Amino acid sequence: MTAIMQTYSHAAVMNFLNEVSGNFPDAIALAAGRPTERYFGRLSSDALREAIDHYGCSTTQLLQYGRTAGVINTLVATQLRRDEGVPADANRLIITAGCQEAIALCLSALCPRPDDVALVCNPTYIGATGAAQACGVAIKAIPSAGDDLITALEQCIEQLRLERRCPRVLYLIPDFDNPTGRTLSEVQRRAVLTTCERHRIVILEDNPYGMFRYEGSPIPPMAALDEAGCVIYLSTYSKTICPAVRVGSACLPHTLFGDRQASAKLFQELTERKSFVSVNTSPITQAIVGGILLRHDCSLRDWIRPTVDLYADNREVMLQALKKQFEPHPDISWNRPDGGFFLSMDLPFRFTADAVVECATRFQVIVMPLAFFALDDSQDRRIRLAFSAVDRDDIASGVASLSRYVTQRLESMGTRERESPVAASAL
Amino acid sequence: MTAIMQTYSHAAVMNFLNEVSGNFPDAIALAAGRPTERYFGRLSSDALREAIDHYGCSTTQLLQYGRTAGVINTLVATQLRRDEGVPADANRLIITAGCQEAIALCLSALCPRPDDVALVCNPTYIGATGAAQACGVAIKAIPSAGDDLITALEQCIEQLRLERRCPRVLYLIPDFDNPTGRTLSEVQRRAVLTTCERHRIVILEDNPYGMFRYEGSPIPPMAALDEAGCVIYLSTYSKTICPAVRVGSACLPHTLFGDRQASAKLFQELTERKSFVSVNTSPITQAIVGGILLRHDCSLRDWIRPTVDLYADNREVMLQALKKQFEPHPDISWNRPDGGFFLSMDLPFRFTADAVVECATRFQVIVMPLAFFALDDSQDRRIRLAFSAVDRDDIASGVASLSRYVTQRLESMGTRERESPVAASAL
Repeated sequence: MTAIMQTYSHAAVMNFLNEVSGNFPDAIALAAGRPTERYFGRLSSDALREAIDHYGCSTTQLLQYGRTAGVINTLVATQLRRDEGVPADANRLIITAGCQEAIALCLSALCPRPDDVALVCNPTYIGATGAAQACGVAIKAIPSAGDDLITALEQCIEQLRLERRCPRVLYLIPDFDNPTGRTLSEVQRRAVLTTCERHRIVILEDNPYGMFRYEGSPIPPMAALDEAGCVIYLSTYSKTICPAVRVGSACLPHTLFGDRQASAKLFQELTERKSFVSVNTSPITQAIVGGILLRHDCSLRDWIRPTVDLYADNREVMLQALKKQFEPHPDISWNRPDGGFFLSMDLPFRFTADAVVECATRFQVIVMPLAFFALDDSQDRRIRLAFSAVDRDDIASGVASLSRYVTQRLESMGTRERESPVAASAL
Repeated sequence: MTAIMQTYSHAAVMNFLNEVSGNFPDAIALAAGRPTERYFGRLSSDALREAIDHYGCSTTQLLQYGRTAGVINTLVATQLRRDEGVPADANRLIITAGCQEAIALCLSALCPRPDDVALVCNPTYIGATGAAQACGVAIKAIPSAGDDLITALEQCIEQLRLERRCPRVLYLIPDFDNPTGRTLSEVQRRAVLTTCERHRIVILEDNPYGMFRYEGSPIPPMAALDEAGCVIYLSTYSKTICPAVRVGSACLPHTLFGDRQASAKLFQELTERKSFVSVNTSPITQAIVGGILLRHDCSLRDWIRPTVDLYADNREVMLQALKKQFEPHPDISWNRPDGGFFLSMDLPFRFTADAVVECATRFQVIVMPLAFFALDDSQDRRIRLAFSAVDRDDIASGVASLSRYVTQRLESMGTRERESPVAASAL
C-alpha cells in the first residue's frame, strides 16, 4: 500500500497563497477561484436589508438561535429543483455554513471508522482533502488515467478491498471541475452511479459551478440521474449570490441505497454534528438568501445572467489570448471548459511553488500549480488559470506575461527537462 | 478504566429538547439558555444595515471571501481588553462561527492523538462534550466533588497518567457555569492555573455569561490571571448582541507555556482547520458586530445594561418564587448565582426525561434535568432553571407549577426513594 502524500501540505498551500497574493498585490491574479465583484453593487447594505425585509421573518426568527438544520430549507430545495433539476426535498436538506461545512460534515459522518476511506479525483478541490485531513478521514486518490474514470475507480475500489479498507464516499465535481475545468458526460455520470451503487459508495456531488455554463447543453446533475439513492448533492450560494453569506447546503436522497430510514438517520446525524460544530447557520444570512430567492421566484437564473455573460466573455478572452500566445508551442496545451471559473494548462516543465513566486515577482502574474491540488506528483506540469474575477484586459496581459515566463523558462532549461516524460503517478 | 458514558446521548438530548419545546408550546420554558428577545428591536434589519454602514468596509470586503482568521479581530480584541480585562492580542485571536466552532477547533487541534484527553467538569455544557464526540476526542469528567475542584482535578490527571493517557485540555466555564450557575473564586482559578501549568494542560476558558453579573465583585477571567500561557479565552456575541450573528472568538495567550512560537503555531493550525470547516466567518455578520463595537467605543457594557437589568430582575423573581414555593421542603435546595442565565436545584428524587414530559404535559413547565449534561448518574436528582428569556410573571407561574409537580411527586413516591442517597459517581 502506497501512502498518499499530498505533494504540498494543505497548510503550506494555504499559507503560500495568502502570502503570494499579499506580497505581490500588483500582479494579475489568474489564481483565485472567486466570483467577480462587478455586480456586488446589487448587494449594498441597503439591498441586504431589503432582502431580509422581503424574507419577512420576525426579529425573533431573525436574531435568536434557529433550527439547526436551517430555516430557508423549502426555498433552497425549490431553487435546486427549478434551477438544477435536483429532486430536492426540504426535509432531507440541511443548510450549512457554506458548502465547506457540508463537505466536512458529510465526510466525517460517512467515514466514522479508521478503515473507512473517501475517494477523490486527483487533482481535486483542496477544501475536500483538507476537510478529510482535519476530520481524520483517510483519502485515496483515483489516478487521473485520462478519460477512463470508471476503470480507475474500479481499480481503486479493488485495491482498497485487498487492503481490507472500505471506500465509503466519492467526492466529485462533475461540472466544470475545480481545479481542472473538466466536465463529466452523462454517460460517465451514469457509469459512476452504477459503480457506486454496486459498491454502496455515497457520491458527494459538489456543484458550485453548474449554473455557469457558457456553451453546450446542460448535463443533468448526478443527483438528478440518481435512482439508487447514492448521491448527496452539495450546493453553495457563494458563486451565485456572494461568498460572504456563508450559506450552502447538503441535500440527501430520499433513500440511501433504497433504505428510507437510513437516509433519515443520516440526516439526523448530520444535523447533530452540525449542532456541535456551528450550532446553526446564521439566520441573518439565511434571511438574505431567503429574501433574494423569494423575490426571484426561487430561481437564480436571471439573477446570475450578468455574471454568466461576464464569465463567458472572460473565458473567450482567455482562450483567444492563450491561442495567440501559446499556439507556437506544440507541447503546451489547455482545455476549453464549457463553463465554470477555470481551465487547466499542460506545460512541458514542472511548475512548482518557486515558479509561482518567479511569475509573480518578475512577470506580475499569479497562477496556481495543479500540484497544489494533487495527491502525488502527476500534476507537476500543470497549472490552473482562473478567469472569473479578472478584468478582460488583465486576462490578456496576464496570459501574455505567463507566455513571457514560459518562453524564458523554455529557453533557459534546454531540451532535457522538456523531453522527459511526465513523472508516473505514485499510485 | 471506567468508560465514560453520557447518561443521555447527545443526539437523544438534542432531539428530546427540540421535541419537547415543539410539542408543548404552551408550557412555560425555564429550559432554554437563550438571551431575552425583549431588546431585539434594537437590531431591526435597518439597524443591521446601519451597523454594516458604520463598520464602513467596501462591498468587496463585505461580500467576498474574507481572511480565514477574521476581519474584525482588532475590534474584538479591544472589546475583550476593555470589558473583560483579557490581555487579548488581535494577532492571536481567531474569529469563529460562534463560540461553538471555537470549542470544536480547539479540542481537535489540542487533542490530535488517540491517547489525548479533554477534561471537563461534570456536569458541563453539552456543546463541549458533543464537540469532543463529533471530533473524536476522548473526554474525562472531573468528579463533582463539592468545592474541592483541585483535588478532583489532580486525581483525574493521576488516573489518566496510570492509564498512559494524556490530559491535554481542560474545558471550563468559570463564571456562572452552564448548567450549574457555579462561579469559581479567584483562589480556585489561581489553583487551577497552577495545576494546569504544572501538567501542561491548556485551559479552554469559555465565558459567555461573564458580562452578566448582578451582584458581588467581578472576578478576573482566568485569561487575565494567566502568567504561564495556558489559557485560551473563548467568547461569543450570542449573549451580548444576538445568537444569529454567529460570531465568537478564540484568543490565544502570547506564549504557550512560555513558548511564543508554540502559540503562533497553534494559531496557524486553528486557522488552517477553520479554513477546512467553514472557510471563514461571514464578513456580513462580522461587519454587523464590528459596526456595533465601533459605535460603542469597543465596549458593550452600556449596550447590555438593559438586558443585565432584566436578567437581574428575573433572577430575583425566580429566587423569591423558589423561596415561597420550596421553603417548606428542607430536602430541596438551590444555589444563588451572582450572574448568568441559570441556577441549579437539588431534588430528593430522580428527575429524568420522563419527568420533563410529565412536567410539560401536566404542569405546563419545562425544566432541564442536569442528567442531560452529565457524564454519569451523579446529577440525576438535579435540574437547571433558566431565567434569562422568560417573562417575570411566567417565572413565578413556572416555579409554582414546578412546585405542584414536586409536591405530587413527593406524595406519590412515599419515603423510600426520597431517603436513598444520591447514587455514587461511576468515576
